[in-house]
Amino acid sequence: MKKDTKVVVLGGGSWATAIVKMLCEKVDQIGWYMRNNTAIEYIKEHNHNPNYLTSVEFKVDQLYLSDDINELVDYAEIIIFAIPSAFLSAELSKLTVSLKDKTVFSAIKGIVPETGLIVGEHLNEMYEIPFENIGVITGPCHAEEVALERLSYLTIACQDEAKAKCLADCLTSDYIFCKTSDDIIGTEYAAMLKNIYAIAAGIAHGLGYGDNYQAVLMSNAVREMKRYIKKVHKMKRNINDSAYLGDLLVTGYSTFSRNRMFGTMIGKGYTVKSAMMEMKMVAEGYYAVKSAYEINQVNGARTPIIDTVYSIVYEGKSPRKHFKILSENLD
Amino acid sequence: MKKDTKVVVLGGGSWATAIVKMLCEKVDQIGWYMRNNTAIEYIKEHNHNPNYLTSVEFKVDQLYLSDDINELVDYAEIIIFAIPSAFLSAELSKLTVSLKDKTVFSAIKGIVPETGLIVGEHLNEMYEIPFENIGVITGPCHAEEVALERLSYLTIACQDEAKAKCLADCLTSDYIFCKTSDDIIGTEYAAMLKNIYAIAAGIAHGLGYGDNYQAVLMSNAVREMKRYIKKVHKMKRNINDSAYLGDLLVTGYSTFSRNRMFGTMIGKGYTVKSAMMEMKMVAEGYYAVKSAYEINQVNGARTPIIDTVYSIVYEGKSPRKHFKILSENLD
Repeated sequence: MKKDTKVVVLGGGSWATAIVKMLCEKVDQIGWYMRNNTAIEYIKEHNHNPNYLTSVEFKVDQLYLSDDINELVDYAEIIIFAIPSAFLSAELSKLTVSLKDKTVFSAIKGIVPETGLIVGEHLNEMYEIPFENIGVITGPCHAEEVALERLSYLTIACQDEAKAKCLADCLTSDYIFCKTSDDIIGTEYAAMLKNIYAIAAGIAHGLGYGDNYQAVLMSNAVREMKRYIKKVHKMKRNINDSAYLGDLLVTGYSTFSRNRMFGTMIGKGYTVKSAMMEMKMVAEGYYAVKSAYEINQVNGARTPIIDTVYSIVYEGKSPRKHFKILSENLD
Repeated sequence: MKKDTKVVVLGGGSWATAIVKMLCEKVDQIGWYMRNNTAIEYIKEHNHNPNYLTSVEFKVDQLYLSDDINELVDYAEIIIFAIPSAFLSAELSKLTVSLKDKTVFSAIKGIVPETGLIVGEHLNEMYEIPFENIGVITGPCHAEEVALERLSYLTIACQDEAKAKCLADCLTSDYIFCKTSDDIIGTEYAAMLKNIYAIAAGIAHGLGYGDNYQAVLMSNAVREMKRYIKKVHKMKRNINDSAYLGDLLVTGYSTFSRNRMFGTMIGKGYTVKSAMMEMKMVAEGYYAVKSAYEINQVNGARTPIIDTVYSIVYEGKSPRKHFKILSENLD
């Protein structure tokens, strides 16, 4: 790899911060866009992000920080999107520089609400970026464990193997192992669907179901994920690879997952609105379940878990009653 | 189903107690063999097992308790073995009554140390019970959650579908759902292998690996399980069904699993001997890994996780060093 690869990370959250940290192990200079200039000034002075993964110290010389997205996109060869999907359109609307000749990787787990598309499809349709220039970075990976330098595995997916390999080399270090894949659609849908299954795990937990049920739910979830993704984009893939099953497990079993927490509150009797207010944020899975459900109305995969979460979150159905019905459809 | 089916449970531990509880929901009278007569007298007086799942109350009228294994085997149409595999041979050596015309189900997760066989194969080889009379009861199912009547799913496997169906009917209740399968070899090997993977999860945890790694380990474990079982008994099965993946997850993610706890102690630096002394018991996975490793020396499936656990537990290799090597073989 070239240590002078011009990589730019867009986003100021915990996952963006973790990705910048990983890149710092290998790349000479990392472009880092944040819209929040106060945070940028803070990082320059204190060497760490004031809001996320505050224990991670940066060498500020290594960072090319800016709140001007056009300046950094213009500079970049590779752009990594790590902006929550709900804010992606707003950020992209600021762009005057073209994305056409850039390699763009999405580290976003979700659906762009305005178009109902996963990020790769959105970038392809709205910005005319050819699919061979679009990639995906996927886990299983909690940002917090990257901060602790705990061994984690990433999958870097791109139709163009050389581009996936290039970014994989930039991210690989003592504590990050990367594999490459050509399944950008499948890995991205898996990353989105897992958030719905984490909401389901949370609802079950909130209702008082135990570990036996959770194991059955996850076993059914990965089979449902396989059926769902097969309808969206049929190709040879092993659904038990880390990027699919591993990513499902790290989220579905995490007690820190926002999606699981959101589900737990619903299961305990909070309304969707009050759960969101209490959490002071929107879980990605909240958007994901609507899109996933609607896409599947056309595709017609058998998806009892997605259907159940949709009916509870969007149709105000009773969690207790509808999880009872769901239970009879699991095995 | 016939409410007067003559079912007998052999064993006095927590899983035996949980199975008796499940049967009590449906069957008029349940035969229950325990070698410990003091426990039998205690149950008759206090309506609960003094040593395991003490919160479960029985109607003593419903129980046909005895410390005479021959009396109960003679009475039985269906016999459920829920004795730890390490004690199975000793118990069976007491038998003067023939098992030949009985339907026997194994609820044991492990290898019979004397023969290195899974229980179904052991019963077939040593007691001439034909395979169509042999079945397996498998989870994902912690006995403790049965005691709490938390919804759990069992898989009842037997080559003879009618026999599986009969026992499934006896066990099904408001909180127990059963499915049937004809894969007795595969489900039994899965139940055994999961204990090895739980030891691996424990070692990783003890060494300080985190949730990201655990998810990758489990994702690799289920793929390894698939390769292993395919070599032992090739047939059409979905490794992501509850009896395989679900059973792996409930154990691999359980902080109460004895196998995981054993692994954690090894990872933290205990020797195998001191970990066993500290736990005051032997984890089933300790025997399982030896047998699984030896069987696979012939079969030749790629099994980096089993090989690693074997080298640590039986060859005294360094957990830290050998998990580092393992990590490079996971993806």
